Amino acid sequence: MRISELSAKSRVAIPTIKYYLREGMLHQGEQTAATRAEYDETHLRRLRMIRALLEVGRLSVASIKQVIAAVEDESLPTHRVLGTAHYALSPAVDPEQTEEWRSARALVDDLITELGWDITEEAPTRDELAQTIVRMRQLGLSVDLAPYVEAARRLVAEVEMDAIPFDGPRDAAVEAMVLGTVLYGRVLDTLRRMAHESESARRLTP
Amino acid sequence: MRISELSAKSRVAIPTIKYYLREGMLHQGEQTAATRAEYDETHLRRLRMIRALLEVGRLSVASIKQVIAAVEDESLPTHRVLGTAHYALSPAVDPEQTEEWRSARALVDDLITELGWDITEEAPTRDELAQTIVRMRQLGLSVDLAPYVEAARRLVAEVEMDAIPFDGPRDAAVEAMVLGTVLYGRVLDTLRRMAHESESARRLTP
Repeated sequence: MRISELSAKSRVAIPTIKYYLREGMLHQGEQTAATRAEYDETHLRRLRMIRALLEVGRLSVASIKQVIAAVEDESLPTHRVLGTAHYALSPAVDPEQTEEWRSARALVDDLITELGWDITEEAPTRDELAQTIVRMRQLGLSVDLAPYVEAARRLVAEVEMDAIPFDGPRDAAVEAMVLGTVLYGRVLDTLRRMAHESESARRLTP
Repeated sequence: MRISELSAKSRVAIPTIKYYLREGMLHQGEQTAATRAEYDETHLRRLRMIRALLEVGRLSVASIKQVIAAVEDESLPTHRVLGTAHYALSPAVDPEQTEEWRSARALVDDLITELGWDITEEAPTRDELAQTIVRMRQLGLSVDLAPYVEAARRLVAEVEMDAIPFDGPRDAAVEAMVLGTVLYGRVLDTLRRMAHESESARRLTP
């Protein structure tokens, strides 16, 4: 298809598509004439993935570029690629040089050890969780994480991982994992806010 | 305490504190001289709340202002205040005029009816979830929401709502609900990414 049709189908404006092409976020089409290129379903799918990560995942363009680079890097073993893509989904957090921070970070490390979870020392999720715990403690919120660990473990291990095609081509597995993490994450977050509204209506209105 | 001490304890810079005072996000201190005001624990707590919503919840300053206005508005019944605060936590979504959108939105409305959830027609979470479903369908992801509904329902109804002091002052209940929604939401999201890393390591490394 021509770029105009690709734009219509993906609902991404032509100048934006050209920007993604220049930035290497979208692979080039097949050049059929000096000023004309042909695009296919792989381009449409990539645009839909970028759009979902931007709108639903609210990732920055820089993070999406990292995710795409990880999807496309064929020199790394799959687990490393998944790691790179995953780490691009985590926000950057500046560890504080405080006792509060060290205590929260130790709680996170101990939790991971107790659970027997296989998570690298460099995983940005360790600092991300520590930061949230610091804020929760400052605000007097309970840091009993057990119900959240159980919910996350069950959803990921029993539902989401089974949907990832680990035996197919590598980029399909990485793409499925990234999209699953972001989109089901948003689903869960929205449903929690819905449940909050419903429960507080039930408890507070006569 | 003086503004310098408030700044040191909250780790919020003095010009930022002055900005929050000007914007009405932080209540004025007690004026003890022409150029001197005294602050207390309520100011420190408010600054910690703003910081948590900014950093952990990644809310915009505009959304935080709406949340604070809802916390402070004494003319509304609690349930309405909770609703206003809640709706400020939802991102704005533009409904698309497409068949895909209408079908996703109908799925959301049917789900809410089936669950018997008490959610207003205007709740922005309806469009937010519809948007995610449109993207999931375009990308070929399963839209079986049942495991997510169950996880959200259980966490909110059985854990989070019990931690909210509904019988205390109204602003305390609203603040607890907003902070809980945002901070436990981040905890859950981070733990899901950790579980993903651990599970893929387990399934992919020898």
